[in-house]
Amino acid sequence: MHAITIPEPGGPEALVWDEVPDPVPGEGEVLVEVAASAVNRADILQRQGFYNPPAGASPYPGLECSGRIAALGTGVSGWSVGDEVCALLSGGGYAEKVVVPAGQLLPVPKGVGLVQAAALPEVACTVWSNVFMIAHLRPGETLLVHGGSSGIGTMAIQLAKAVGARVAVTAGTQEKLGHCAELGADILINYREQDFVAEVMKATDGTGADVILDNMGAKYLERNVQTLAVNGRLAIIGMQGGVKGELNIGTLLTKRAAISATSLRARPLDEKAAIVAAVREHVWPLLAAGHVRPVVDRELPVADAAAAHRVVEDSKHVGKVLLVAPGA
Amino acid sequence: MHAITIPEPGGPEALVWDEVPDPVPGEGEVLVEVAASAVNRADILQRQGFYNPPAGASPYPGLECSGRIAALGTGVSGWSVGDEVCALLSGGGYAEKVVVPAGQLLPVPKGVGLVQAAALPEVACTVWSNVFMIAHLRPGETLLVHGGSSGIGTMAIQLAKAVGARVAVTAGTQEKLGHCAELGADILINYREQDFVAEVMKATDGTGADVILDNMGAKYLERNVQTLAVNGRLAIIGMQGGVKGELNIGTLLTKRAAISATSLRARPLDEKAAIVAAVREHVWPLLAAGHVRPVVDRELPVADAAAAHRVVEDSKHVGKVLLVAPGA
Repeated sequence: MHAITIPEPGGPEALVWDEVPDPVPGEGEVLVEVAASAVNRADILQRQGFYNPPAGASPYPGLECSGRIAALGTGVSGWSVGDEVCALLSGGGYAEKVVVPAGQLLPVPKGVGLVQAAALPEVACTVWSNVFMIAHLRPGETLLVHGGSSGIGTMAIQLAKAVGARVAVTAGTQEKLGHCAELGADILINYREQDFVAEVMKATDGTGADVILDNMGAKYLERNVQTLAVNGRLAIIGMQGGVKGELNIGTLLTKRAAISATSLRARPLDEKAAIVAAVREHVWPLLAAGHVRPVVDRELPVADAAAAHRVVEDSKHVGKVLLVAPGA
Repeated sequence: MHAITIPEPGGPEALVWDEVPDPVPGEGEVLVEVAASAVNRADILQRQGFYNPPAGASPYPGLECSGRIAALGTGVSGWSVGDEVCALLSGGGYAEKVVVPAGQLLPVPKGVGLVQAAALPEVACTVWSNVFMIAHLRPGETLLVHGGSSGIGTMAIQLAKAVGARVAVTAGTQEKLGHCAELGADILINYREQDFVAEVMKATDGTGADVILDNMGAKYLERNVQTLAVNGRLAIIGMQGGVKGELNIGTLLTKRAAISATSLRARPLDEKAAIVAAVREHVWPLLAAGHVRPVVDRELPVADAAAAHRVVEDSKHVGKVLLVAPGA
């Protein structure tokens, strides 16, 4: 088969579509013939040499895919060859075929195309596990989503609105904020021109955000804690603004607030399977009912993954950038 | 009645036993004739002028007491005049009488004396709410308790052992560590001579602590995060080592860990009542069965609260320092 390889870490041109051995499904795994994958920030870090795949993972980038089951390993039940699926991967999605633990498979939701389904696994699992399983966003509460027009952001807005929460978003252009508004966001903050602490406080009568989904890390830590409501929960899923920040424990304690930080990729199989099962139970019906939809910025051929990485690195996209396999 | 007043903030001598008006129970409240109260760190901060009572709270110090119900306000059911109780207070325990919202009352547990019961409400509610309701300590997990010989520490050790967890403690002397060992602590760390990160890692084969109960705040923040296990939870309940500390979000994210910070006193009535109800359900049976006991360092007359504050400020105590009312 072919896959995107990284002979030497570097810029987008480091991504090389090359012939590699076919993967073989082991016990509890299935082989998926890939229809599409999607770009995640972690892929860019991996390309740059800053994020090595965990032990046992595919060396090729790609943390999610959609496609058809081509073969079953031993001990897999509930799935058949030919099933249309999408999947959370620990790597290897930028390829014609990929091996997936059965616990990380999801059916293509009703009403979603096979290629478009590749936009779902990472964002649905990340948002559901952080905003709902860890931070327990409840109806009537306010969620602040940083980067509201990103893949994660567009899913977070829709899921939060679907459960009856109020949603504030930050983004860097009015156009991106417009897309967030179309998805249901209530409070629109242009972080280049406005102070998100002041804007959230103003929009919530001084109460603050009950839950914050943050991809900036250190750069926003102090302001995020200031923005939290009493009993607020800050869920950090990225560190695009640095790793080490000052934490005011006094503010956290006065608010009885909590901070969590997680990533999906490093989780053991059982934790991933539990998240995927919860997503299938809670998110998939919302997709099938049309209350939530995948937001796809564009589709590019996987062989031209370099072009897709340039789009994401320039932050020109809204939603997910998909990589479509040759035959799909 | 008499109560400890603070005419001017200052040292222990600022505490003055003086005649003051009797409190009157309002709707949903009871009047308790105090048998004993106990010293908490917050009382010392209040004496020093650094911790003003929340709105509506008694101006006198004392966050817990035991005693007998002397009168019922309107709308109180389930309690009778003469009942022996202990209670979580938002202030006013250093007095002959105090008014308590009914949701913060607990019966004196079977097998515990009326005076000794004053040692229970703050530590039981603080430990249960943080270690169990927020951090969800589970059987087989490891809990690290800083200040293992404090009132909080002695209760944390016993409750964690009672649910089948392993307990590591830090303390400043071998004598204090000996007391912790008697209560069941498994891993004893003298913080003056040993590095608690290294000791916990060594004792857990490099896994770390699943839950940490911390009273130090900023001073221990970095090392606490280093000590956490994967999926670990740091529960901060005090800031004796400062308010602002550097947080390594990268370490937190790699471990998928969480940090919470809370205090009991500022919680609204419904949250306090929920914690008290959970303590009655989960902790009181352990006291009645003798698996957990109040640890009392000494009993002093409430009129000599200054002497009691000196003991706690010098950290000479193990467990709680009680303040006994004149008639008790």
